[in-house]
Amino acid sequence: MTEVARTRTELRARIARWRRDRVSIALVPTMGALHEGHLSLIALARARAGAVVASLFVNPTQFAADEDLASYPRDETQDHALLESAGCDLIYAPSVAEIYPAGFSTVIAVPPLAAFLEGAVRPHHFAGVATVVAKLLIQATPDVAVFGEKDYQQLAIIRRLVLDLDLPVEILGGTIVRDANGLALSSRNVYLSSAQCEIAPALHRFLEAAARDLAAGDAVKLVEASATAELKTAGFSTVDYVEVRAADTLEHLGPGPITGPARVLAAARLGKTRLIDNVAAQRSDQLAERRRALQLRR
Amino acid sequence: MTEVARTRTELRARIARWRRDRVSIALVPTMGALHEGHLSLIALARARAGAVVASLFVNPTQFAADEDLASYPRDETQDHALLESAGCDLIYAPSVAEIYPAGFSTVIAVPPLAAFLEGAVRPHHFAGVATVVAKLLIQATPDVAVFGEKDYQQLAIIRRLVLDLDLPVEILGGTIVRDANGLALSSRNVYLSSAQCEIAPALHRFLEAAARDLAAGDAVKLVEASATAELKTAGFSTVDYVEVRAADTLEHLGPGPITGPARVLAAARLGKTRLIDNVAAQRSDQLAERRRALQLRR
Repeated sequence: MTEVARTRTELRARIARWRRDRVSIALVPTMGALHEGHLSLIALARARAGAVVASLFVNPTQFAADEDLASYPRDETQDHALLESAGCDLIYAPSVAEIYPAGFSTVIAVPPLAAFLEGAVRPHHFAGVATVVAKLLIQATPDVAVFGEKDYQQLAIIRRLVLDLDLPVEILGGTIVRDANGLALSSRNVYLSSAQCEIAPALHRFLEAAARDLAAGDAVKLVEASATAELKTAGFSTVDYVEVRAADTLEHLGPGPITGPARVLAAARLGKTRLIDNVAAQRSDQLAERRRALQLRR
Repeated sequence: MTEVARTRTELRARIARWRRDRVSIALVPTMGALHEGHLSLIALARARAGAVVASLFVNPTQFAADEDLASYPRDETQDHALLESAGCDLIYAPSVAEIYPAGFSTVIAVPPLAAFLEGAVRPHHFAGVATVVAKLLIQATPDVAVFGEKDYQQLAIIRRLVLDLDLPVEILGGTIVRDANGLALSSRNVYLSSAQCEIAPALHRFLEAAARDLAAGDAVKLVEASATAELKTAGFSTVDYVEVRAADTLEHLGPGPITGPARVLAAARLGKTRLIDNVAAQRSDQLAERRRALQLRR
Protein backbone atom coordinates (compact mmCIF):
# COMPACT_ATOMS: atom_id res chain seq x y z
CA MET A 1 0.00 0.00 0.00
CA THR A 2 1.20 3.49 -0.82
CA GLU A 3 2.08 5.37 2.36
CA VAL A 4 -0.43 8.02 3.44
CA ALA A 5 0.31 11.25 5.35
CA ARG A 6 -2.70 12.95 6.94
CA THR A 7 -0.86 15.85 8.60
CA ARG A 8 1.88 18.23 7.56
CA THR A 9 4.03 16.76 10.34
CA GLU A 10 3.78 13.29 8.78
CA LEU A 11 4.36 14.79 5.34
CA ARG A 12 7.45 16.71 6.44
CA ALA A 13 8.90 13.72 8.29
CA ARG A 14 8.70 11.61 5.11
CA ILE A 15 10.08 14.45 2.95
CA ALA A 16 12.95 14.96 5.42
CA ARG A 17 13.95 11.28 5.08
CA TRP A 18 14.01 11.59 1.28
CA ARG A 19 16.03 14.81 1.54
CA ARG A 20 18.54 13.10 3.83
CA ASP A 21 18.92 10.37 1.21
CA ARG A 22 19.25 13.02 -1.53
CA VAL A 23 16.11 11.83 -3.32
CA SER A 24 14.46 14.52 -5.45
CA ILE A 25 10.75 15.05 -4.91
CA ALA A 26 7.82 15.78 -7.21
CA LEU A 27 4.42 16.94 -6.00
CA VAL A 28 1.20 16.41 -7.94
CA PRO A 29 -1.62 18.38 -6.28
CA THR A 30 -5.08 16.96 -7.03
CA MET A 31 -8.63 17.16 -5.71
CA GLY A 32 -8.99 13.39 -6.00
CA ALA A 33 -11.67 11.75 -8.22
CA LEU A 34 -8.68 10.69 -10.27
CA HIS A 35 -8.74 9.76 -13.95
CA GLU A 36 -6.20 9.06 -16.70
CA GLY A 37 -5.42 12.79 -16.87
CA HIS A 38 -4.13 12.79 -13.30
CA LEU A 39 -2.26 9.54 -13.85
CA SER A 40 -0.43 11.09 -16.79
CA LEU A 41 0.74 13.83 -14.38
CA ILE A 42 1.99 11.15 -11.98
CA ALA A 43 3.89 9.53 -14.86
CA LEU A 44 5.43 12.91 -15.76
CA ALA A 45 6.39 13.39 -12.09
CA ARG A 46 7.95 9.89 -11.95
CA ALA A 47 10.07 10.71 -14.98
CA ARG A 48 11.41 13.83 -13.30
CA ALA A 49 11.98 12.97 -9.64
CA GLY A 50 13.03 10.13 -7.37
CA ALA A 51 9.91 10.27 -5.21
CA VAL A 52 6.37 11.26 -6.17
CA VAL A 53 3.91 12.77 -3.69
CA ALA A 54 0.28 13.20 -4.75
CA SER A 55 -1.98 15.36 -2.65
CA LEU A 56 -5.71 14.62 -2.42
CA PHE A 57 -7.54 17.66 -1.09
CA VAL A 58 -10.90 19.03 -2.20
CA ASN A 59 -10.12 22.67 -1.43
CA PRO A 60 -13.29 24.39 -0.17
CA THR A 61 -11.99 27.94 -0.69
CA GLN A 62 -11.90 27.60 -4.47
CA PHE A 63 -15.61 26.77 -4.68
CA ALA A 64 -18.22 29.54 -4.63
CA ALA A 65 -21.31 29.09 -2.43
CA ASP A 66 -23.43 28.09 -5.47
CA GLU A 67 -20.87 25.61 -6.79
CA ASP A 68 -20.52 21.84 -6.38
CA LEU A 69 -18.33 21.51 -3.25
CA ALA A 70 -20.79 19.20 -1.48
CA SER A 71 -21.39 16.97 -4.50
CA TYR A 72 -17.83 17.03 -5.90
CA PRO A 73 -16.98 13.38 -6.60
CA ARG A 74 -14.94 11.71 -3.82
CA ASP A 75 -13.66 8.13 -3.84
CA GLU A 76 -10.54 7.86 -1.70
CA THR A 77 -10.32 4.07 -1.90
CA GLN A 78 -10.23 4.11 -5.68
CA ASP A 79 -7.90 7.13 -5.72
CA HIS A 80 -5.43 5.29 -3.49
CA ALA A 81 -5.57 2.20 -5.70
CA LEU A 82 -4.98 4.26 -8.84
CA LEU A 83 -2.09 6.16 -7.25
CA GLU A 84 -0.49 2.94 -6.08
CA SER A 85 -0.69 1.37 -9.52
CA ALA A 86 0.72 4.57 -11.04
CA GLY A 87 3.80 4.29 -8.81
CA CYS A 88 3.05 7.16 -6.44
CA ASP A 89 5.29 6.98 -3.33
CA LEU A 90 3.27 9.04 -0.85
CA ILE A 91 -0.32 10.24 -0.67
CA TYR A 92 -0.87 13.47 1.25
CA ALA A 93 -4.55 13.57 2.22
CA PRO A 94 -5.00 16.27 4.85
CA SER A 95 -8.32 17.20 6.40
CA VAL A 96 -9.85 20.64 5.88
CA ALA A 97 -8.97 21.50 9.51
CA GLU A 98 -5.35 20.52 8.89
CA ILE A 99 -5.05 22.95 5.97
CA TYR A 100 -7.32 25.65 7.41
CA PRO A 101 -7.09 25.59 11.22
CA ALA A 102 -9.28 27.96 13.25
CA GLY A 103 -8.40 31.59 12.58
CA PHE A 104 -6.88 30.94 9.16
CA SER A 105 -6.87 34.35 7.43
CA THR A 106 -4.22 34.53 4.70
CA VAL A 107 -5.12 35.00 1.03
CA ILE A 108 -2.71 34.82 -1.88
CA ALA A 109 -3.91 36.32 -5.12
CA VAL A 110 -2.51 37.07 -8.57
CA PRO A 111 -5.02 39.77 -9.53
CA PRO A 112 -4.03 40.62 -13.11
CA LEU A 113 -4.10 36.95 -14.21
CA ALA A 114 -7.32 36.19 -12.34
CA ALA A 115 -9.40 39.06 -13.71
CA PHE A 116 -10.64 37.37 -16.89
CA LEU A 117 -11.74 34.01 -18.39
CA GLU A 118 -12.41 31.64 -15.44
CA GLY A 119 -11.77 34.49 -12.99
CA ALA A 120 -14.54 36.62 -14.49
CA VAL A 121 -17.08 33.81 -13.99
CA ARG A 122 -15.61 32.56 -10.68
CA PRO A 123 -14.37 35.70 -8.86
CA HIS A 124 -12.73 34.06 -5.80
CA HIS A 125 -11.74 30.78 -7.41
CA PHE A 126 -8.11 31.57 -8.22
CA ALA A 127 -7.34 33.16 -4.85
CA GLY A 128 -8.50 29.87 -3.32
CA VAL A 129 -6.29 27.92 -5.72
CA ALA A 130 -3.24 30.18 -5.31
CA THR A 131 -3.44 30.09 -1.52
CA VAL A 132 -3.75 26.33 -1.22
CA VAL A 133 -1.14 25.59 -3.88
CA ALA A 134 1.36 27.97 -2.23
CA LYS A 135 0.68 26.28 1.11
CA LEU A 136 1.13 22.79 -0.36
CA LEU A 137 4.38 23.85 -2.06
CA ILE A 138 5.67 25.34 1.22
CA GLN A 139 4.62 22.23 3.17
CA ALA A 140 6.08 19.68 0.77
CA THR A 141 9.07 21.67 -0.60
CA PRO A 142 9.15 19.62 -3.81
CA ASP A 143 11.81 20.10 -6.50
CA VAL A 144 9.13 19.79 -9.18
CA ALA A 145 5.36 20.23 -9.12
CA VAL A 146 3.07 19.05 -11.91
CA PHE A 147 -0.25 20.58 -12.97
CA GLY A 148 -2.47 19.76 -15.94
CA GLU A 149 -2.79 22.09 -18.92
CA LYS A 150 -6.52 21.41 -18.77
CA ASP A 151 -6.64 24.21 -16.18
CA TYR A 152 -4.47 26.39 -18.37
CA GLN A 153 -5.16 29.68 -16.61
CA GLN A 154 -4.53 28.04 -13.22
CA LEU A 155 -1.18 26.81 -14.53
CA ALA A 156 -0.26 30.37 -15.65
CA ILE A 157 -1.24 31.75 -12.23
CA ILE A 158 0.81 29.11 -10.40
CA ARG A 159 3.85 29.77 -12.61
CA ARG A 160 3.52 33.49 -11.85
CA LEU A 161 3.11 33.00 -8.11
CA VAL A 162 6.10 30.66 -7.88
CA LEU A 163 8.25 33.16 -9.79
CA ASP A 164 7.01 36.13 -7.74
CA LEU A 165 7.53 34.49 -4.34
CA ASP A 166 10.77 32.76 -5.37
CA LEU A 167 9.46 29.38 -4.31
CA PRO A 168 12.32 27.00 -5.16
CA VAL A 169 10.30 24.62 -7.34
CA GLU A 170 10.03 23.91 -11.05
CA ILE A 171 6.46 23.94 -12.38
CA LEU A 172 5.64 21.46 -15.14
CA GLY A 173 2.47 21.42 -17.23
CA GLY A 174 1.06 18.08 -18.37
CA THR A 175 -0.76 17.87 -21.71
CA ILE A 176 -4.50 17.28 -21.70
CA VAL A 177 -5.68 13.66 -21.82
CA ARG A 178 -8.83 13.11 -23.93
CA ASP A 179 -11.24 10.28 -24.52
CA ALA A 180 -11.66 8.68 -27.94
CA ASN A 181 -14.13 11.43 -28.96
CA GLY A 182 -11.72 14.20 -27.97
CA LEU A 183 -13.50 15.20 -24.75
CA ALA A 184 -10.94 16.37 -22.18
CA LEU A 185 -11.00 14.09 -19.13
CA SER A 186 -12.42 15.82 -16.06
CA SER A 187 -13.67 14.68 -12.67
CA ARG A 188 -16.84 16.63 -13.47
CA ASN A 189 -17.61 14.57 -16.60
CA VAL A 190 -19.44 12.10 -14.31
CA TYR A 191 -22.17 14.75 -14.03
CA LEU A 192 -22.99 14.46 -17.76
CA SER A 193 -26.13 12.61 -18.91
CA SER A 194 -25.76 10.29 -21.90
CA ALA A 195 -27.40 12.92 -24.14
CA GLN A 196 -24.93 15.53 -22.87
CA CYS A 197 -22.05 13.08 -23.46
CA GLU A 198 -23.00 13.18 -27.16
CA ILE A 199 -22.70 16.96 -27.28
CA ALA A 200 -19.66 17.47 -25.00
CA PRO A 201 -16.92 16.45 -27.51
CA ALA A 202 -18.02 19.34 -29.76
CA LEU A 203 -16.14 21.65 -27.38
CA HIS A 204 -12.79 20.20 -28.37
CA ARG A 205 -13.83 19.80 -32.03
CA PHE A 206 -14.65 23.50 -32.41
CA LEU A 207 -11.52 24.56 -30.49
CA GLU A 208 -9.45 22.51 -32.93
CA ALA A 209 -11.32 24.12 -35.83
CA ALA A 210 -10.62 27.54 -34.30
CA ALA A 211 -6.91 26.68 -33.99
CA ARG A 212 -6.83 25.59 -37.66
CA ASP A 213 -8.52 28.83 -38.76
CA LEU A 214 -6.06 30.88 -36.70
CA ALA A 215 -3.19 28.88 -38.20
CA ALA A 216 -4.47 29.80 -41.65
CA GLY A 217 -4.46 33.50 -40.72
CA ASP A 218 -8.12 34.13 -39.83
CA ALA A 219 -8.82 37.08 -37.51
CA VAL A 220 -9.07 36.40 -33.75
CA LYS A 221 -12.37 38.26 -33.49
CA LEU A 222 -14.04 36.19 -36.22
CA VAL A 223 -12.69 32.91 -34.93
CA GLU A 224 -13.96 33.63 -31.40
CA ALA A 225 -17.40 34.63 -32.69
CA SER A 226 -17.78 31.66 -34.99
CA ALA A 227 -16.68 29.11 -32.35
CA THR A 228 -19.13 30.63 -29.87
CA ALA A 229 -21.97 30.41 -32.40
CA GLU A 230 -21.07 26.83 -33.33
CA LEU A 231 -21.02 25.71 -29.68
CA LYS A 232 -24.50 27.13 -29.16
CA THR A 233 -25.77 25.41 -32.29
CA ALA A 234 -24.18 22.16 -31.11
CA GLY A 235 -26.38 22.25 -27.99
CA PHE A 236 -24.38 23.98 -25.22
CA SER A 237 -26.83 25.91 -23.04
CA THR A 238 -24.38 28.74 -22.31
CA VAL A 239 -20.99 29.63 -23.70
CA ASP A 240 -19.14 31.52 -20.95
CA TYR A 241 -16.29 32.43 -23.27
CA VAL A 242 -14.22 31.42 -26.27
CA GLU A 243 -11.08 33.53 -26.27
CA VAL A 244 -7.78 33.56 -28.08
CA ARG A 245 -4.96 34.75 -25.82
CA ALA A 246 -1.17 34.93 -25.77
CA ALA A 247 0.07 31.43 -24.86
CA ASP A 248 2.43 32.56 -22.06
CA THR A 249 1.01 35.76 -20.52
CA LEU A 250 -2.66 35.07 -21.40
CA GLU A 251 -2.87 38.70 -22.52
CA HIS A 252 -5.45 39.74 -25.09
CA LEU A 253 -4.29 39.59 -28.69
CA GLY A 254 -5.52 42.11 -31.21
CA PRO A 255 -8.71 41.42 -33.21
CA GLY A 256 -6.70 40.46 -36.32
CA PRO A 257 -4.63 37.36 -37.18
CA ILE A 258 -2.38 36.01 -34.44
CA THR A 259 1.34 36.74 -34.73
CA GLY A 260 2.86 34.42 -32.11
CA PRO A 261 2.06 31.37 -29.99
CA ALA A 262 -1.57 31.60 -28.87
CA ARG A 263 -4.02 29.56 -26.83
CA VAL A 264 -7.73 29.16 -27.53
CA LEU A 265 -9.63 28.77 -24.27
CA ALA A 266 -13.31 28.05 -23.78
CA ALA A 267 -15.89 27.36 -21.09
CA ALA A 268 -19.40 26.21 -21.90
CA ARG A 269 -22.27 24.69 -20.00
CA LEU A 270 -24.39 21.61 -20.58
CA GLY A 271 -27.24 22.09 -18.11
CA LYS A 272 -25.60 22.57 -14.72
CA THR A 273 -22.25 21.13 -15.77
CA ARG A 274 -19.53 23.51 -16.84
CA LEU A 275 -16.84 22.22 -19.18
CA ILE A 276 -13.55 23.95 -19.89
CA ASP A 277 -10.97 23.13 -22.53
CA ASN A 278 -8.11 24.74 -24.44
CA VAL A 279 -5.83 24.11 -27.40
CA ALA A 280 -2.64 25.66 -28.76
CA ALA A 281 -2.70 27.79 -31.91
CA GLN A 282 0.08 29.14 -34.07
CA ARG A 283 0.20 30.55 -37.63
CA SER A 284 1.19 27.77 -40.07
CA ASP A 285 3.52 30.09 -42.00
CA GLN A 286 5.29 31.04 -38.76
CA LEU A 287 5.46 27.42 -37.70
CA ALA A 288 6.96 26.57 -41.08
CA GLU A 289 9.44 29.41 -40.68
CA ARG A 290 10.42 28.23 -37.22
CA ARG A 291 10.93 24.69 -38.48
CA ARG A 292 13.13 25.99 -41.28
CA ALA A 293 15.15 28.06 -38.78
CA LEU A 294 15.57 25.02 -36.55
CA GLN A 295 16.72 22.88 -39.52
CA LEU A 296 19.24 25.55 -40.56
CA ARG A 297 20.71 25.56 -37.06
CA ARG A 298 21.30 21.82 -37.10
CA MET B 1 33.32 44.50 6.43
CA THR B 2 30.06 42.63 6.78
CA GLU B 3 29.35 40.61 3.64
CA VAL B 4 26.62 42.05 1.35
CA ALA B 5 24.27 40.09 -0.93
CA ARG B 6 22.49 42.12 -3.60
CA THR B 7 20.59 39.27 -5.28
CA ARG B 8 18.63 36.28 -4.06
CA THR B 9 21.20 34.07 -5.77
CA GLU B 10 24.00 35.55 -3.64
CA LEU B 11 21.76 35.34 -0.57
CA ARG B 12 20.88 31.69 -1.17
CA ALA B 13 24.49 30.73 -1.87
CA ARG B 14 25.56 32.15 1.53
CA ILE B 15 22.58 30.57 3.31
CA ALA B 16 23.37 27.20 1.68
CA ARG B 17 26.94 27.31 3.06
CA TRP B 18 25.61 27.96 6.57
CA ARG B 19 23.07 25.16 6.19
CA ARG B 20 25.81 22.77 5.09
CA ASP B 21 27.74 23.70 8.24
CA ARG B 22 24.56 23.25 10.36
CA VAL B 23 24.57 26.92 11.40
CA SER B 24 21.11 28.20 12.37
CA ILE B 25 20.01 31.44 10.73
CA ALA B 26 18.09 34.50 11.94
CA LEU B 27 16.65 37.12 9.61
CA VAL B 28 15.97 40.72 10.68
CA PRO B 29 13.99 42.49 7.92
CA THR B 30 14.43 46.29 7.98
CA MET B 31 13.88 49.28 5.73
CA GLY B 32 17.28 50.71 6.73
CA ALA B 33 17.67 54.11 8.44
CA LEU B 34 18.72 52.02 11.40
CA HIS B 35 18.57 53.11 15.02
CA GLU B 36 18.98 51.47 18.43
CA GLY B 37 15.59 49.80 18.02
CA HIS B 38 16.83 47.83 15.02
CA LEU B 39 20.12 47.06 16.75
CA SER B 40 18.22 45.54 19.67
CA LEU B 41 16.54 43.21 17.15
CA ILE B 42 19.96 42.23 15.79
CA ALA B 43 21.08 41.49 19.36
CA LEU B 44 17.98 39.33 19.91
CA ALA B 45 18.73 37.53 16.64
CA ARG B 46 22.38 36.96 17.68
CA ALA B 47 21.21 35.38 20.93
CA ARG B 48 18.99 32.93 19.04
CA ALA B 49 20.93 31.85 15.95
CA GLY B 50 24.41 31.13 14.72
CA ALA B 51 24.25 33.57 11.82
CA VAL B 52 22.34 36.84 11.52
CA VAL B 53 21.10 38.22 8.21
CA ALA B 54 19.67 41.76 8.12
CA SER B 55 17.76 42.86 5.06
CA LEU B 56 17.75 46.51 4.01
CA PHE B 57 14.90 47.13 1.60
CA VAL B 58 12.61 50.17 1.42
CA ASN B 59 9.58 48.32 0.14
CA PRO B 60 7.66 50.57 -2.27
CA THR B 61 4.44 48.52 -2.20
CA GLN B 62 3.75 49.32 1.46
CA PHE B 63 3.71 53.08 0.81
CA ALA B 64 0.59 54.80 -0.54
CA ALA B 65 0.98 57.37 -3.34
CA ASP B 66 0.67 60.25 -0.87
CA GLU B 67 3.16 58.78 1.61
CA ASP B 68 6.88 59.37 2.10
CA LEU B 69 8.50 56.73 -0.15
CA ALA B 70 10.67 59.29 -1.98
CA SER B 71 11.80 61.08 1.17
CA TYR B 72 12.08 58.01 3.43
CA PRO B 73 15.51 58.34 5.12
CA ARG B 74 18.23 56.27 3.43
CA ASP B 75 21.87 56.01 4.54
CA GLU B 76 23.33 52.70 3.44
CA THR B 77 26.89 53.54 4.50
CA GLN B 78 25.84 54.25 8.06
CA ASP B 79 23.45 51.27 8.10
CA HIS B 80 26.29 48.95 7.05
CA ALA B 81 28.58 50.39 9.75
CA LEU B 82 25.89 49.94 12.43
CA LEU B 83 25.12 46.39 11.32
CA GLU B 84 28.80 45.48 11.33
CA SER B 85 29.30 46.82 14.85
CA ALA B 86 26.15 44.97 15.99
CA GLY B 87 27.65 41.67 14.79
CA CYS B 88 25.44 41.10 11.75
CA ASP B 89 26.90 38.40 9.49
CA LEU B 90 25.24 39.21 6.18
CA ILE B 91 23.44 42.23 4.78
CA TYR B 92 20.83 41.48 2.12
CA ALA B 93 20.25 44.69 0.20
CA PRO B 94 18.35 43.86 -2.98
CA SER B 95 17.21 46.40 -5.56
CA VAL B 96 13.52 47.04 -6.22
CA ALA B 97 13.89 45.21 -9.55
CA GLU B 98 15.38 42.18 -7.78
CA ILE B 99 12.35 41.89 -5.48
CA TYR B 100 9.74 43.01 -8.03
CA PRO B 101 10.89 41.98 -11.52
CA ALA B 102 8.79 42.99 -14.53
CA GLY B 103 5.37 41.35 -14.45
CA PHE B 104 5.35 40.82 -10.66
CA SER B 105 1.66 40.27 -9.79
CA THR B 106 1.28 38.32 -6.54
CA VAL B 107 -0.35 39.82 -3.45
CA ILE B 108 -0.48 38.22 -0.01
CA ALA B 109 -3.03 39.65 2.38
CA VAL B 110 -4.40 38.86 5.83
CA PRO B 111 -7.70 40.71 5.45
CA PRO B 112 -9.26 40.32 8.93
CA LEU B 113 -6.12 41.59 10.71
CA ALA B 114 -5.55 44.43 8.23
CA ALA B 115 -9.06 45.90 8.33
CA PHE B 116 -8.59 48.18 11.36
CA LEU B 117 -6.05 50.43 13.18
CA GLU B 118 -3.17 51.07 10.74
CA GLY B 119 -5.03 49.18 8.01
CA ALA B 120 -8.01 51.56 8.21
CA VAL B 121 -5.75 54.57 7.65
CA ARG B 122 -3.37 52.83 5.22
CA PRO B 123 -5.57 50.43 3.18
CA HIS B 124 -2.87 48.68 1.09
CA HIS B 125 -0.02 48.95 3.58
CA PHE B 126 -0.24 45.51 5.15
CA ALA B 127 -0.66 43.66 1.87
CA GLY B 128 2.61 45.30 0.82
CA VAL B 129 4.23 44.24 4.09
CA ALA B 130 2.85 40.68 4.06
CA THR B 131 3.91 40.08 0.46
CA VAL B 132 7.48 41.31 0.89
CA VAL B 133 7.98 39.60 4.26
CA ALA B 134 6.70 36.28 2.89
CA LYS B 135 9.05 36.66 -0.06
CA LEU B 136 12.04 37.47 2.18
CA LEU B 137 11.23 34.49 4.43
CA ILE B 138 10.98 32.20 1.39
CA GLN B 139 14.22 33.57 -0.07
CA ALA B 140 16.26 33.40 3.14
CA THR B 141 14.63 30.34 4.81
CA PRO B 142 15.68 31.51 8.29
CA ASP B 143 15.05 29.45 11.44
CA VAL B 144 14.06 32.62 13.29
CA ALA B 145 12.90 36.05 12.10
CA VAL B 146 12.78 39.09 14.35
CA PHE B 147 10.37 42.04 14.11
CA GLY B 148 9.88 44.98 16.47
CA GLU B 149 6.82 45.31 18.68
CA LYS B 150 6.74 48.97 17.66
CA ASP B 151 4.79 47.77 14.60
CA TYR B 152 2.59 45.60 16.78
CA GLN B 153 -0.17 45.01 14.22
CA GLN B 154 2.43 44.14 11.58
CA LEU B 155 3.91 41.58 13.98
CA ALA B 156 0.46 40.02 14.52
CA ILE B 157 -0.10 39.85 10.75
CA ILE B 158 3.28 38.23 10.15
CA ARG B 159 2.68 35.66 12.91
CA ARG B 160 -0.68 34.82 11.31
CA LEU B 161 0.71 34.55 7.80
CA VAL B 162 3.60 32.31 8.91
CA LEU B 163 1.16 30.04 10.75
CA ASP B 164 -1.33 29.98 7.85
CA LEU B 165 1.24 29.22 5.15
CA ASP B 166 3.26 26.84 7.38
CA LEU B 167 6.46 28.74 6.75
CA PRO B 168 9.03 26.85 8.85
CA VAL B 169 10.26 29.86 10.85
CA GLU B 170 9.84 31.08 14.41
CA ILE B 171 8.75 34.71 14.67
CA LEU B 172 10.17 36.73 17.56
CA GLY B 173 8.97 40.17 18.67
CA GLY B 174 11.52 42.63 20.08
CA THR B 175 10.42 45.11 22.75
CA ILE B 176 10.23 48.78 21.84
CA VAL B 177 13.36 50.87 22.40
CA ARG B 178 12.63 54.41 23.65
CA ASP B 179 14.67 57.57 24.12
CA ALA B 180 15.13 59.10 27.58
CA ASN B 181 11.77 60.90 27.26
CA GLY B 182 9.93 57.70 26.40
CA LEU B 183 9.50 58.42 22.68
CA ALA B 184 9.64 55.16 20.74
CA LEU B 185 12.61 55.19 18.35
CA SER B 186 11.53 55.41 14.72
CA SER B 187 13.28 56.15 11.44
CA ARG B 188 10.58 58.77 10.90
CA ASN B 189 11.50 60.72 14.07
CA VAL B 190 14.06 62.63 11.95
CA TYR B 191 11.09 64.43 10.35
CA LEU B 192 10.17 66.07 13.71
CA SER B 193 10.97 69.74 14.32
CA SER B 194 12.41 70.65 17.73
CA ALA B 195 9.00 71.98 18.83
CA GLN B 196 7.39 68.67 17.73
CA CYS B 197 10.10 66.74 19.61
CA GLU B 198 8.82 68.39 22.79
CA ILE B 199 5.29 67.15 22.17
CA ALA B 200 6.06 63.67 20.77
CA PRO B 201 6.88 61.88 24.09
CA ALA B 202 3.32 62.65 25.28
CA LEU B 203 2.19 59.76 23.04
CA HIS B 204 3.96 57.19 25.19
CA ARG B 205 3.13 59.04 28.44
CA PHE B 206 -0.63 58.92 27.77
CA LEU B 207 -0.44 55.30 26.60
CA GLU B 208 1.22 54.39 29.89
CA ALA B 209 -1.46 56.34 31.75
CA ALA B 210 -4.12 54.45 29.78
CA ALA B 211 -2.47 51.13 30.70
CA ARG B 212 -2.43 52.11 34.39
CA ASP B 213 -6.12 53.07 34.26
CA LEU B 214 -6.98 49.77 32.55
CA ALA B 215 -4.94 47.92 35.17
CA ALA B 216 -7.00 49.61 37.86
CA GLY B 217 -10.22 48.42 36.21
CA ASP B 218 -11.32 51.50 34.23
CA ALA B 219 -13.60 50.89 31.25
CA VAL B 220 -11.99 50.52 27.78
CA LYS B 221 -14.33 53.06 26.25
CA LEU B 222 -13.48 55.76 28.82
CA VAL B 223 -9.75 55.09 28.67
CA GLU B 224 -9.73 55.35 24.85
CA ALA B 225 -11.72 58.60 24.91
CA SER B 226 -9.65 60.22 27.62
CA ALA B 227 -6.29 59.33 25.99
CA THR B 228 -7.55 60.69 22.67
CA ALA B 229 -8.62 63.97 24.31
CA GLU B 230 -5.31 64.28 26.20
CA LEU B 231 -3.25 63.73 23.03
CA LYS B 232 -5.16 66.51 21.27
CA THR B 233 -4.66 68.83 24.24
CA ALA B 234 -0.94 67.95 24.26
CA GLY B 235 -0.62 69.35 20.74
CA PHE B 236 -1.09 66.43 18.32
CA SER B 237 -2.80 67.77 15.21
CA THR B 238 -4.76 64.55 14.55
CA VAL B 239 -5.29 61.41 16.58
CA ASP B 240 -5.94 58.60 14.10
CA TYR B 241 -6.85 56.16 16.86
CA VAL B 242 -6.31 55.11 20.45
CA GLU B 243 -7.65 51.58 20.84
CA VAL B 244 -7.51 48.86 23.43
CA ARG B 245 -7.43 45.42 21.83
CA ALA B 246 -6.80 41.79 22.77
CA ALA B 247 -3.01 41.37 23.01
CA ASP B 248 -2.84 38.26 20.80
CA THR B 249 -5.69 38.42 18.26
CA LEU B 250 -6.03 42.24 18.23
CA GLU B 251 -9.79 41.71 18.45
CA HIS B 252 -12.01 44.41 19.93
CA LEU B 253 -12.64 44.10 23.62
CA GLY B 254 -15.94 45.13 25.15
CA PRO B 255 -16.49 48.73 26.31
CA GLY B 256 -16.02 47.76 29.96
CA PRO B 257 -12.93 46.81 32.01
CA ILE B 258 -10.45 44.46 30.34
CA THR B 259 -10.46 40.86 31.46
CA GLY B 260 -7.24 39.49 29.93
CA PRO B 261 -3.95 40.61 28.37
CA ALA B 262 -4.60 43.73 26.28
CA ARG B 263 -2.62 46.13 24.14
CA VAL B 264 -3.21 49.87 23.89
CA LEU B 265 -2.32 51.07 20.39
CA ALA B 266 -2.27 54.62 19.09
CA ALA B 267 -1.40 56.65 16.02
CA ALA B 268 -1.27 60.45 16.06
CA ARG B 269 0.09 63.15 13.81
CA LEU B 270 2.40 66.07 14.44
CA GLY B 271 2.07 68.10 11.26
CA LYS B 272 2.87 65.73 8.41
CA THR B 273 4.60 63.18 10.62
CA ARG B 274 2.65 60.21 11.84
CA LEU B 275 3.77 58.52 15.05
CA ILE B 276 2.61 55.12 16.25
CA ASP B 277 3.19 53.47 19.60
CA ASN B 278 1.72 50.76 21.82
CA VAL B 279 1.97 49.39 25.35
CA ALA B 280 0.79 46.27 27.16
CA ALA B 281 -2.07 46.44 29.64
CA GLN B 282 -3.39 43.92 32.14
CA ARG B 283 -5.68 44.18 35.19
CA SER B 284 -3.53 44.49 38.35
CA ASP B 285 -5.78 42.08 40.29
CA GLN B 286 -5.43 39.49 37.53
CA LEU B 287 -1.70 40.05 37.34
CA ALA B 288 -1.49 39.55 41.10
CA GLU B 289 -3.59 36.40 40.77
CA ARG B 290 -1.34 35.06 38.03
CA ARG B 291 1.75 35.76 40.12
CA ARG B 292 0.19 33.90 43.04
CA ALA B 293 -0.68 30.96 40.79
CA LEU B 294 2.88 30.87 39.46
CA GLN B 295 4.30 30.95 43.00
CA LEU B 296 1.99 28.13 44.08
CA ARG B 297 3.22 26.00 41.16
CA ARG B 298 6.85 26.39 42.22
